[in-house]
Amino acid sequence: MSSVAKIQLINGPNLNLLGTREKTIYGGETFESFYQKLKTRFAGIELSYYQSNVEGELINKLHEVGFNATGIVLNAGAYTHTSVAIHDAIGALTSPVVEVHISNIYAREEFRHTSLITSKCRGLIAGFGMEGYAMAIEFLLKQS
Amino acid sequence: MSSVAKIQLINGPNLNLLGTREKTIYGGETFESFYQKLKTRFAGIELSYYQSNVEGELINKLHEVGFNATGIVLNAGAYTHTSVAIHDAIGALTSPVVEVHISNIYAREEFRHTSLITSKCRGLIAGFGMEGYAMAIEFLLKQS
Amino acid sequence: MSSVAKIQLINGPNLNLLGTREKTIYGGETFESFYQKLKTRFAGIELSYYQSNVEGELINKLHEVGFNATGIVLNAGAYTHTSVAIHDAIGALTSPVVEVHISNIYAREEFRHTSLITSKCRGLIAGFGMEGYAMAIEFLLKQS
Amino acid sequence: MSSVAKIQLINGPNLNLLGTREKTIYGGETFESFYQKLKTRFAGIELSYYQSNVEGELINKLHEVGFNATGIVLNAGAYTHTSVAIHDAIGALTSPVVEVHISNIYAREEFRHTSLITSKCRGLIAGFGMEGYAMAIEFLLKQS
Amino acid sequence: MSSVAKIQLINGPNLNLLGTREKTIYGGETFESFYQKLKTRFAGIELSYYQSNVEGELINKLHEVGFNATGIVLNAGAYTHTSVAIHDAIGALTSPVVEVHISNIYAREEFRHTSLITSKCRGLIAGFGMEGYAMAIEFLLKQS
Amino acid sequence: MSSVAKIQLINGPNLNLLGTREKTIYGGETFESFYQKLKTRFAGIELSYYQSNVEGELINKLHEVGFNATGIVLNAGAYTHTSVAIHDAIGALTSPVVEVHISNIYAREEFRHTSLITSKCRGLIAGFGMEGYAMAIEFLLKQS
Amino acid sequence: MSSVAKIQLINGPNLNLLGTREKTIYGGETFESFYQKLKTRFAGIELSYYQSNVEGELINKLHEVGFNATGIVLNAGAYTHTSVAIHDAIGALTSPVVEVHISNIYAREEFRHTSLITSKCRGLIAGFGMEGYAMAIEFLLKQS
Amino acid sequence: MSSVAKIQLINGPNLNLLGTREKTIYGGETFESFYQKLKTRFAGIELSYYQSNVEGELINKLHEVGFNATGIVLNAGAYTHTSVAIHDAIGALTSPVVEVHISNIYAREEFRHTSLITSKCRGLIAGFGMEGYAMAIEFLLKQS
Amino acid sequence: MSSVAKIQLINGPNLNLLGTREKTIYGGETFESFYQKLKTRFAGIELSYYQSNVEGELINKLHEVGFNATGIVLNAGAYTHTSVAIHDAIGALTSPVVEVHISNIYAREEFRHTSLITSKCRGLIAGFGMEGYAMAIEFLLKQS
Amino acid sequence: MSSVAKIQLINGPNLNLLGTREKTIYGGETFESFYQKLKTRFAGIELSYYQSNVEGELINKLHEVGFNATGIVLNAGAYTHTSVAIHDAIGALTSPVVEVHISNIYAREEFRHTSLITSKCRGLIAGFGMEGYAMAIEFLLKQS
Amino acid sequence: MSSVAKIQLINGPNLNLLGTREKTIYGGETFESFYQKLKTRFAGIELSYYQSNVEGELINKLHEVGFNATGIVLNAGAYTHTSVAIHDAIGALTSPVVEVHISNIYAREEFRHTSLITSKCRGLIAGFGMEGYAMAIEFLLKQS
Amino acid sequence: MSSVAKIQLINGPNLNLLGTREKTIYGGETFESFYQKLKTRFAGIELSYYQSNVEGELINKLHEVGFNATGIVLNAGAYTHTSVAIHDAIGALTSPVVEVHISNIYAREEFRHTSLITSKCRGLIAGFGMEGYAMAIEFLLKQS
Repeated sequence: MSSVAKIQLINGPNLNLLGTREKTIYGGETFESFYQKLKTRFAGIELSYYQSNVEGELINKLHEVGFNATGIVLNAGAYTHTSVAIHDAIGALTSPVVEVHISNIYAREEFRHTSLITSKCRGLIAGFGMEGYAMAIEFLLKQS
Repeated sequence: MSSVAKIQLINGPNLNLLGTREKTIYGGETFESFYQKLKTRFAGIELSYYQSNVEGELINKLHEVGFNATGIVLNAGAYTHTSVAIHDAIGALTSPVVEVHISNIYAREEFRHTSLITSKCRGLIAGFGMEGYAMAIEFLLKQS
Repeated sequence: MSSVAKIQLINGPNLNLLGTREKTIYGGETFESFYQKLKTRFAGIELSYYQSNVEGELINKLHEVGFNATGIVLNAGAYTHTSVAIHDAIGALTSPVVEVHISNIYAREEFRHTSLITSKCRGLIAGFGMEGYAMAIEFLLKQS
Repeated sequence: MSSVAKIQLINGPNLNLLGTREKTIYGGETFESFYQKLKTRFAGIELSYYQSNVEGELINKLHEVGFNATGIVLNAGAYTHTSVAIHDAIGALTSPVVEVHISNIYAREEFRHTSLITSKCRGLIAGFGMEGYAMAIEFLLKQS
Repeated sequence: MSSVAKIQLINGPNLNLLGTREKTIYGGETFESFYQKLKTRFAGIELSYYQSNVEGELINKLHEVGFNATGIVLNAGAYTHTSVAIHDAIGALTSPVVEVHISNIYAREEFRHTSLITSKCRGLIAGFGMEGYAMAIEFLLKQS
Repeated sequence: MSSVAKIQLINGPNLNLLGTREKTIYGGETFESFYQKLKTRFAGIELSYYQSNVEGELINKLHEVGFNATGIVLNAGAYTHTSVAIHDAIGALTSPVVEVHISNIYAREEFRHTSLITSKCRGLIAGFGMEGYAMAIEFLLKQS
Repeated sequence: MSSVAKIQLINGPNLNLLGTREKTIYGGETFESFYQKLKTRFAGIELSYYQSNVEGELINKLHEVGFNATGIVLNAGAYTHTSVAIHDAIGALTSPVVEVHISNIYAREEFRHTSLITSKCRGLIAGFGMEGYAMAIEFLLKQS
Repeated sequence: MSSVAKIQLINGPNLNLLGTREKTIYGGETFESFYQKLKTRFAGIELSYYQSNVEGELINKLHEVGFNATGIVLNAGAYTHTSVAIHDAIGALTSPVVEVHISNIYAREEFRHTSLITSKCRGLIAGFGMEGYAMAIEFLLKQS
Repeated sequence: MSSVAKIQLINGPNLNLLGTREKTIYGGETFESFYQKLKTRFAGIELSYYQSNVEGELINKLHEVGFNATGIVLNAGAYTHTSVAIHDAIGALTSPVVEVHISNIYAREEFRHTSLITSKCRGLIAGFGMEGYAMAIEFLLKQS
Repeated sequence: MSSVAKIQLINGPNLNLLGTREKTIYGGETFESFYQKLKTRFAGIELSYYQSNVEGELINKLHEVGFNATGIVLNAGAYTHTSVAIHDAIGALTSPVVEVHISNIYAREEFRHTSLITSKCRGLIAGFGMEGYAMAIEFLLKQS
Repeated sequence: MSSVAKIQLINGPNLNLLGTREKTIYGGETFESFYQKLKTRFAGIELSYYQSNVEGELINKLHEVGFNATGIVLNAGAYTHTSVAIHDAIGALTSPVVEVHISNIYAREEFRHTSLITSKCRGLIAGFGMEGYAMAIEFLLKQS
Repeated sequence: MSSVAKIQLINGPNLNLLGTREKTIYGGETFESFYQKLKTRFAGIELSYYQSNVEGELINKLHEVGFNATGIVLNAGAYTHTSVAIHDAIGALTSPVVEVHISNIYAREEFRHTSLITSKCRGLIAGFGMEGYAMAIEFLLKQS
């Protein structure tokens, strides 16, 4: 595609607290601060960011961008483990979605080992801290 | 009841994409277009339509109409399989609710075989495409 | 199809007791009496009725009519929850089969929540009393 | 803490119907009416009340008050049994949260016996009717 | 009831082989021979015996006698563990049904520990050999 | 055996409350009163009765009588469903043990459907009210 | 045995439709046609064939031939996965039974992976198409 | 009731070690010392305390006081998770029973998340340390 | 520790029958007789023995000796598989507890494969007959 | 194929002990001795034999021969029940694989009832002793 | 670390067939060819590659390099789902291990959704084809 | 046996890392160093040691020594929980095998609580550190 690549970052519930909450698991940097670094690092593309604690608003956003974005980087947070609706939403899109988790969810509580959404995603990146978002963007740009 | 019958149609998450998404499962007609046909077919009644991707907004709508509608036709989409809250909401209403699914959910993925809401509904219609909504309306009108 | 539509109703075990047994669940009308009303209501079609308590006889009947009926309305009663053989029989037919249950089986005992046969049926109608048979016939006639 | 204690009451889905719905389980008093009595009973403190049917809005409210309230009294209703996201939200707060249920949820349907959020709460009070909210407030004031 | 008591014995699949098959479990007497002794022992009552290997024929017999017998003694054999249809048939009858098993089914294979029909029977007698039938008859006569 | 038959009745936890507790399930007669009738009915034998709420005391009693009684009639009450220790105790005895339950435990709560002790008993009698004890005694006397 | 070997073939539910039904799984030859070829191929023995859709009739046939046949080749179809009664019937016979399946049932739906009858059979042959029947006959003849 | 209220506290196994054992979970105060404070705090009522490590003795005590106490505060300790017999005992009483746990049992090992007794109690209080006993007493006095 | 080592042997339910019961599993020696040999073999230490069939009495004994014994050798018999209370009691002690089983419990019934108490013990010895007790004592003496 | 057929026999863990080990299950003939007889019986083909106790070496052999053998006869022994890796290896081959078991694995321990590899094999032969290998070879030759 | 980074790639069972096997899932490039490209792409580091079908040899290699490599990129293939031993081996190393899967294993068969090794890895990358190995290397170099 | 006793020690995967890996669980001594002490301690016997990370090589060693050793001491490490093949190998031997674990595996992760091999061993020793090997040797010498 000759036009500028569009990458949408979407964060789910409680990820607005990053940098303040459970720092031993998630680190001490806020996502906003990390996002500014990403903007610099991927200066040539159109990078957007959205966060909501409401499952249905995440679906609304996926519907809105999911038919013309180059790619979507989705950290659905806790909804990863409970939302058939987000699973269905991803399945309906034409843009590729990469699932990212900051921590290694398989090294945490049992209920975080089941993902209802991975099967509809292009791929999964987990356990690499915030760098995982950058890895996802790089992959999506290579594929576009 | 001598007054005009009021039937409320409620669609849950991702059903706003009907006609564009996974056409082999759901067919190629949008719900909006089908709804106009329903308005014509059931011209003598008060027919309303609501869609939301937000679980709690579906509950709000159920609360709003569920004490004076002649009947409610509910396709809760993916929330069918995960929402105890919608189950509770239906249980609190006085208007009868008929559960509808466009596809035969029992011929699809395992996680679509469990419904958390059917036990509180008047009945269940699944697998008849959009015609299922009309079947539900006809039943509700006969019972009123 | 220009010829007269043929609809076969098939009832499974214990449904011969309808109208006498557990009236709070199934109502007080016998199926025979309801069937006469159906004959009147669908006067222009060839409507037949068969009941058996024997699983294999239900299969025999499905084999007999399932390649040239316009449609089959099947209430397999308790065999719904235990019969892989009826599941296989339906899967082998060319006529569409609609599954009907008089009561809302999902609001009853746990063991009635699992259906082994729905996945091979065209659709499912449950909880609308005997009217469910009429709804199934109407659908099958529309599709033919 | 020398300043006035701040206690936030939060009610989840369908609890806005209290007093009208399933009175044999929940009693016939509305929560609004009970809340006025609580205001009188705990006159010396800053008492607030919030209700939403939207899971994510409950999380928003928890984030908003959960770092400076003396304590939070949470009845998450049906989300108690399905929400990992609320579990995570509570885990991120610094204010103590007490979980309250009006009815004895362990004497009701099987699916109400599992709580996804209790493990992150300070404690659990269930089965004492609306008085449970007052018991929770009293405990939180003693601890502050 | 002043008239002569009517007791119907019903044996399910493979019980026609009693006395020839697996004698270490069931003993070496045929049921026919035992039945003649029972006729003598309970000379004053109307005692009948029916055996079938066909699930639906057992249901037919239960329907036939279950509304005017003083009592029914049922050994459903292997259908005990698999038949929801016999469960439903017993539930529809007005005559009391006593479930009998010759061997202690709980001391045998795991799959014989689950009974689908006991919950609809008046009581259960297992492990006393053929004498169990006599114990059931005696109880039914005492209750009539 | 030419000597007088010795039959030991043993009742487990809460059965001392028979006749006062949950009368719709267990009836209104105390076991003491019923036991006096049994003494009269089986006048020619040595009949004893023991009750305890303590699991280990039931085991002590089984050890004490289980090597020289003609038979033991055991209603282990709630320990039926939880006690491997009583299972082991019965397995060690030489006297035959008949398990009795007053109600049809398979028509009650799910957790009463599993018996840990039946496999070591001679047989099982359930659902015949207190008469079940008499049926057990009669069987044991016939076998001795 | 010096007399002519007797081999009984028994087919269960829906196998009468072989050659017409789901040809991609079962092939396009009818069993009748294949059976004629078998008669030719095993000209020197007494070969018989029986098919029924009724579980109990299969048991009747097993009882009838199972004490004097050289061997039985049984394809119980769907009853393989649900019939404890056929399991018991085979266990009571003296003639060896070989279980045959035309398709590889372990490469199909999950519910076809469990067989209730294999444990009582001499052996199992699955996945070799109709040739499996011939392999079973050859084995039984070698053993006789 | 005009007479003095009678409240019985009952502690189950290992709770006699409170103040010495696992202090990070249960705190460092002995129950005896706490009980003296409760006596002072609730000076106007008849407050009694009983502890036993024997399941059956707890049942004996429940039987003894459960028909005339104003209320019972029960911490059944580990028997909470294993005792059907205590469940039955509580169900037989007329005095209300409030279940108390010192720690938040839902934040501990998996096997402490299941309670066999809560369904028969008036309500549940968990996680508030020894103060939970006082909360229970206050509730019972308000209800009396 | 310079003083004489104190080792407490504790046996649970039915182990008082050793030497008389199920000799093929447990051998023909009584524990009393074996204990006398142990006294001789470990003449220099203070060796005590306690047996009870009552779960709570085993806990009482553990509390009594568990804070000053050099070590405890515990064969909890059937309570091994059902007692959370003994698990908790061991967890509260300061003396090390070694779990012993005479037979290889993992080669017996399924329900003997789960131990609720091993996780709180120092170690486990199973399958070595009565010699296992001696192995446990030797280990405890080496560690002291 | 006009060239000589190549059939590879592969035996998994412990099958090198055939003829010495558990003779009541597997018979007393060594596989080496049986293999010599097979060489004679199938003199016109190229027959090879390989055995290893190492899972990965079995995979190596499958890779080596699986693209040009006429067929493979595989008895994976205990790896049948645990090896996803062998499942994947078979799935990658172009030569057909027939699974053979000497004993009827469905009549043995529960853990032998699950096969991870059958779904990728052409068919399954179990319970016919060593003759099963010959049956597999004959089938493969017929198909080639 | 000032010295040259050492990265070890390790591939498990069947991955030697990449490029020849199941190309729709894994693509048509051999790993050897891809590895040469990686050598060029990461010219400045010491990159090594090892493949084995033997679980224990993978463990040997992990032991050999896992205490001085900059990082390890591990695709354990089918052993991912079955090997506790590889889980333990990774847990014992000091070098970080990144788990890679070429396909999205969560969109494939159920048994590929469980990973026994992820919890001991630094992170997980799945679904990005062979590029996933490069993403892992880049991450490990950034962290070193 | 008058000849010198032969005891074979066998260690499974990752146990070659003892003394370097996870010292808080396994201690800081290498097995080699401990083995030299054992050689001294049991100077009069023929003591051998073997370690492998390869499941099949452990089986090879068991076959090699298992028909003439006085006894085998086996710590199968992680294969304990996954290897049916080692289970089968032990079952085929004539020499007794004692299972040893250094740590108390029942106090660790859930997946270490299941042993597939214990049922075929003479006995089990777990949780006593390396001393467990000595305890096993002593037992085997006493039995020989």
